[in-house]
Amino acid sequence: MTFAATVLTLYPEMFPGPLGLSLAGRALERGAWSFAARNIRDHATDRHRTVDDTPAGGGVGMVLKADILAAAIDAAAPPDDPRPRLLMSPRGRPLTQARVRALAEGPGAVIVCGRFEGVDQRVIEGRGLEEVSIGDYILSGGELAAMVLLDACVRLLPGVMGKEASGEDESFSDGLLEYPHYTRPPMWEERAIPEILVSGDHGRIARWRRAEAEALTAERRPDLWAAYQERRGRKD
Amino acid sequence: MTFAATVLTLYPEMFPGPLGLSLAGRALERGAWSFAARNIRDHATDRHRTVDDTPAGGGVGMVLKADILAAAIDAAAPPDDPRPRLLMSPRGRPLTQARVRALAEGPGAVIVCGRFEGVDQRVIEGRGLEEVSIGDYILSGGELAAMVLLDACVRLLPGVMGKEASGEDESFSDGLLEYPHYTRPPMWEERAIPEILVSGDHGRIARWRRAEAEALTAERRPDLWAAYQERRGRKD
Repeated sequence: MTFAATVLTLYPEMFPGPLGLSLAGRALERGAWSFAARNIRDHATDRHRTVDDTPAGGGVGMVLKADILAAAIDAAAPPDDPRPRLLMSPRGRPLTQARVRALAEGPGAVIVCGRFEGVDQRVIEGRGLEEVSIGDYILSGGELAAMVLLDACVRLLPGVMGKEASGEDESFSDGLLEYPHYTRPPMWEERAIPEILVSGDHGRIARWRRAEAEALTAERRPDLWAAYQERRGRKD
Repeated sequence: MTFAATVLTLYPEMFPGPLGLSLAGRALERGAWSFAARNIRDHATDRHRTVDDTPAGGGVGMVLKADILAAAIDAAAPPDDPRPRLLMSPRGRPLTQARVRALAEGPGAVIVCGRFEGVDQRVIEGRGLEEVSIGDYILSGGELAAMVLLDACVRLLPGVMGKEASGEDESFSDGLLEYPHYTRPPMWEERAIPEILVSGDHGRIARWRRAEAEALTAERRPDLWAAYQERRGRKD
């Protein structure tokens, strides 16, 4: 079964966009995953093709209407569609590499891209949307967030990366940020590649990389570092 | 002075992409910000236009070469260019709405998009690149991350959003996730808009929204909730 992505958006012309190029684009061309963008506005029912309305209780901005969005979801994903239904939203649970891996092992995703001030809460509940956040900042809409989520998933699909990048030796795979990389030339602007990396001693290289990854994580990400130490403590 | 974005990438054809449409696209057309994508590969020096090489010390993947990337950076941003130089990387400090706001108030950004296994550490140090992460997951490259960062900045530029969405009443503006939204119809699939929102009592509505935002944050984001309580404690 191929990973099938359906995106519901007011800007279908943004897609596949960056996902149609490079790694994700080549995988799409080969059929390693499939993609469809559906326009929420196609389900508007008045002659102005209205999709939003003012927030109940007052406030700035506009809210995406429950009835219109529900019709768009029902048309794209009938009740027996096994794919998770995601709503890209800064209110969601933060996306992690573990969640990406779980999604990539599944049948795909139906992804709703929010716009305006937000989405009527009743459609979130009524259609069981899982709110997912890609980070603690605000975008103009969920479209770029959906692309980020799909790019992260697609690179993990079987055969997409090849052995070149197995995903085993990168940031977050063991809860640490990745160690620094170097390549030729050996000397650049009076900066040399660390001697140990050209020593040929693979045991020492592995220990050096681990120590660098730990030091970087401790410095930049006290949150990840605390979780890493806790896991390590439990193993001892 | 206009917010000026320069992106260094191996996939300039991805840009402006989604940033050329909707809110960011209209702002770009009006000249509220400027954008240029430069191809790192234009600075390759051999006839194969090589930009990467195998990692010193062994390992999978390829590393973006310091000499080539430095030449691309120097051509796009001379030493007196006041713009911050960012490298989109999962090793970076997590992007926050506060950092977005600070960037949006500045002269723009020079953004390097990583690819392959990583970037030679010496060019990060030699050109003072600030590593920025948009979240704890791995993308196939920094291009989508750069678009996310720019979209978040552009919507905060003067005149881009207008009064419709002032950015004052949204997730993270006060350290809380946003309260739920509702709009017409009052009843949808046997789900009613909460009565308080149609009461017309603005004081009660504001208190209800604050309580909802607090409850959601406590449930979904213990990290934000702890920080919020600590700040509130200090104010008392």
